[in-house]
Amino acid sequence: MPNFPATHTLASHASAKHPVIPVILCGGAGTRLWPLSRKNFPKPFLRVGNASLIAQTVERAAAVMAAYGNAANSGQTGQNLLLVSNESYQFLLQDECAPVLGKALPNAVLHQILEPNGRNTAPAIALAALWSQTLQQGLDPVLLVLPADHLISPIDQFIQTAQLAIQAALGGSLACFGINPTAPETGFGYIQKGEALPNLPGAFSVQRFVEKPSQAVALEYLVSGQYVWNGGMFALKASDVLKGLLEHAPDVHQAATQVWGNVKGAQGQAQGQVCTFDAAEFNTLPDISIDYALMERSSNVAVVPAAFQWSDIGSWAALAEQNTADSDGNTVQAEGRGELINIDSKGTHVQMAQRTVATLGLTDILIVDTPDALLVADKSRHQDVKKVVEVLKAKGSPLVDFHPTVHRPWGTYTVLEDSNGYKIKRIEVKPRASLSLQMHHHRSEHWIVVSGTAEVTNGENVFLVRKNESTYIPAGNKHRLINPGKTLLVMIEVQSGDYLEEDDIVRFDDKYGRA
Amino acid sequence: MPNFPATHTLASHASAKHPVIPVILCGGAGTRLWPLSRKNFPKPFLRVGNASLIAQTVERAAAVMAAYGNAANSGQTGQNLLLVSNESYQFLLQDECAPVLGKALPNAVLHQILEPNGRNTAPAIALAALWSQTLQQGLDPVLLVLPADHLISPIDQFIQTAQLAIQAALGGSLACFGINPTAPETGFGYIQKGEALPNLPGAFSVQRFVEKPSQAVALEYLVSGQYVWNGGMFALKASDVLKGLLEHAPDVHQAATQVWGNVKGAQGQAQGQVCTFDAAEFNTLPDISIDYALMERSSNVAVVPAAFQWSDIGSWAALAEQNTADSDGNTVQAEGRGELINIDSKGTHVQMAQRTVATLGLTDILIVDTPDALLVADKSRHQDVKKVVEVLKAKGSPLVDFHPTVHRPWGTYTVLEDSNGYKIKRIEVKPRASLSLQMHHHRSEHWIVVSGTAEVTNGENVFLVRKNESTYIPAGNKHRLINPGKTLLVMIEVQSGDYLEEDDIVRFDDKYGRA
Repeated sequence: MPNFPATHTLASHASAKHPVIPVILCGGAGTRLWPLSRKNFPKPFLRVGNASLIAQTVERAAAVMAAYGNAANSGQTGQNLLLVSNESYQFLLQDECAPVLGKALPNAVLHQILEPNGRNTAPAIALAALWSQTLQQGLDPVLLVLPADHLISPIDQFIQTAQLAIQAALGGSLACFGINPTAPETGFGYIQKGEALPNLPGAFSVQRFVEKPSQAVALEYLVSGQYVWNGGMFALKASDVLKGLLEHAPDVHQAATQVWGNVKGAQGQAQGQVCTFDAAEFNTLPDISIDYALMERSSNVAVVPAAFQWSDIGSWAALAEQNTADSDGNTVQAEGRGELINIDSKGTHVQMAQRTVATLGLTDILIVDTPDALLVADKSRHQDVKKVVEVLKAKGSPLVDFHPTVHRPWGTYTVLEDSNGYKIKRIEVKPRASLSLQMHHHRSEHWIVVSGTAEVTNGENVFLVRKNESTYIPAGNKHRLINPGKTLLVMIEVQSGDYLEEDDIVRFDDKYGRA
Repeated sequence: MPNFPATHTLASHASAKHPVIPVILCGGAGTRLWPLSRKNFPKPFLRVGNASLIAQTVERAAAVMAAYGNAANSGQTGQNLLLVSNESYQFLLQDECAPVLGKALPNAVLHQILEPNGRNTAPAIALAALWSQTLQQGLDPVLLVLPADHLISPIDQFIQTAQLAIQAALGGSLACFGINPTAPETGFGYIQKGEALPNLPGAFSVQRFVEKPSQAVALEYLVSGQYVWNGGMFALKASDVLKGLLEHAPDVHQAATQVWGNVKGAQGQAQGQVCTFDAAEFNTLPDISIDYALMERSSNVAVVPAAFQWSDIGSWAALAEQNTADSDGNTVQAEGRGELINIDSKGTHVQMAQRTVATLGLTDILIVDTPDALLVADKSRHQDVKKVVEVLKAKGSPLVDFHPTVHRPWGTYTVLEDSNGYKIKRIEVKPRASLSLQMHHHRSEHWIVVSGTAEVTNGENVFLVRKNESTYIPAGNKHRLINPGKTLLVMIEVQSGDYLEEDDIVRFDDKYGRA
């Protein structure tokens, strides 16, 4: 039997030899919440309530770390948080997570493991374990593994559940968070609870894992009270992860060790590490989940039933539920300045953007309005939104991958108009950020600053362009745009030329390594 | 009994003493086809099929005139077409109608009677009659009165019906077009046919007019075969209109004569007259329909049942019907480059704009997508779209009156982005057109030409700005924009300032009389 530390000694115990490191897994895809989510702006980045799902996840993780705050701050290990994600999200992740973490824990450091492509959760967690032991030599961190796209409340209950799971992990368990089922869902994995763990009230051994069951079986599980959903959240000592994989999934252990041996960027700590990998070598990692590779095959698994409200926002129906309904069951989530006029509709959900939306006499209809795509669906068909995306994918539509607003390391650009012979963009450059030194063969650019100040390199000249001033970059001129100031730079760019695609760019120098 | 000319002598007969003048009544409002129609872009301007409803009306009218073409061209009276509309549509009317008329009948002249505000059809037709007699001294034109917003096909059948109606008018009848009812509509007036007119097969005397009947009565009428809908189309000798009004509605006759006496712009013919009126005096005209003031009170009324297909496009349902349905009863009308992805929907109508629209599992849903407003409605509620407009009106929403694209005498402007401290417009200036010499107190303007060439007055300087060139107009500078060329000038304007409303304009000189 594992030996669990008593609750009151947890903080010092955890921080001394076993610092808690949140590991946030930020997956891709966004087919079920299209058109709000796109491949380049997937579910974790969607705002639900006041913040994106991933920002809320960071906030929760920071709250758990804060529970060990004094000990960690006084110790030598510092506070660290790791994001594991696709490399294409690097700057979006940084933008979305760093301010939240910094606000909650000013001394905490944000690290990233960037995957060239997704290889499922077992390799991701294996690499996180290897990373944590490299970062904190001689220690054995507890990894608090959290998916980036779950909605959880209230936060106090989350902290409580996480504390229990961490205690279980400290005692040698592979601890899973169990979600109390609220419906006979067939889309989740189930965990059958075993005996209550001695010395750790609220935690249980695991009788068995069950993959997505049939409707009838799911109903049976729900009624029995013996089952919880597998929420994909875990507390795991790094050593236990690696030991377990060595025993139960040696191919994962071996490939991860090999891949980790050739990691780039795993040095330093103060500024946060950004770990990258060779894509071909990364593909040698087996595509397998941590549940299948480790949890289901291990005997030292524990489950901590969670007391919090939980949703994986798996469809528009789940997102609609997060909003307070009016007396006719209508919900609305407003992102822009659009206004909703409803006459005699019931049970609708409207996701607003910049436009006015009028609903008239509708029943159980879902409307998702975005600047370049509109979805209108019967609410009962919320699981089939992915079929729309499949059709678009087959047509090669850019709507699968991109929003009109595209995130770049230096800020964003938004295509306002794409017409014959010209294109208009709004370009927003973060303070102190810089676009690459670049050149276009086919287009000239007119730049008009409408907010902030720009430092412009245009051919041989470097000069400032202030609000309500403009400049002109002829095709063939080397140029660069920098925001030297402390406020956002907003610029309107009018491109003129016969070929206006993004790939007409020659980068000479780039502070983000894209040259 | 009136004395009808034989059909084969109609052409010369009509053109000699009684030239046919189409009088197209272009009404306002657009509440039932919102958000595609707005107060400043009402139903007649909506494209149905390949052209706007009013352009199609002009085309039909021209086809009737062409039936008398040789006679008219060789005679002294010329060919004339009159538009009666609100003065706010002057330039939009010109843009929409002149090319169609010019293409069909190169020698025909387009005239406008511009009302300061709508006073219903009796005053409009009275003024048209007075205008026609002023224009063609000593002659007695046949006015072919046509609403601008009806959809009719095929055109041959229309010409045939119009010929019959004109013959009836030449014989002294006030001739109404009767529409064969296809449903027990309660929204139309009905005409009960009387005896067949001797010598004019296909025309009938009128037993009685019936205002909008109840559903039961409408069904009775439909079954009886004795009733036709009052289509609001007439053939009337100008003298008969005035004589009839003098007898049956002397107040209309007197007020119209008075108002006409003070008309402005009723001189010349070659370039087309644009008749305008004093608003206060115009308001003395009784607000009464021609049906009520004249038709229902006269004994010399004839009805010519029409053989053509007809729709007044009175709602989205009527507009949807104009499109060929797929095997699931879905219709779509595409205006922009938007694409429709439909999965398992039935009976929908989608009005597309620039965006991709996905419909999933819908039944009998209407979707109208426009750049700044979206309507989603149960199809059965098509008559209640006006309720949405009422709500918007009560809120003072600009969506009732304006599209993002606004028509001006010189062309159009489209607001692409309206943000804090700046506004972006696409400005399209017609060849040889000119904006007013103007000045803004609160905003500076950056102009970038993306197509065509601009002649710019900026303070004391006048210069050309070519494609891919720009200029800057500081706040307080007198400036003017002219398209001196033969192709459309397209310019992107970025306004910068703290106050960016349209009313910050001082006009010094304007070729359209707006200074």
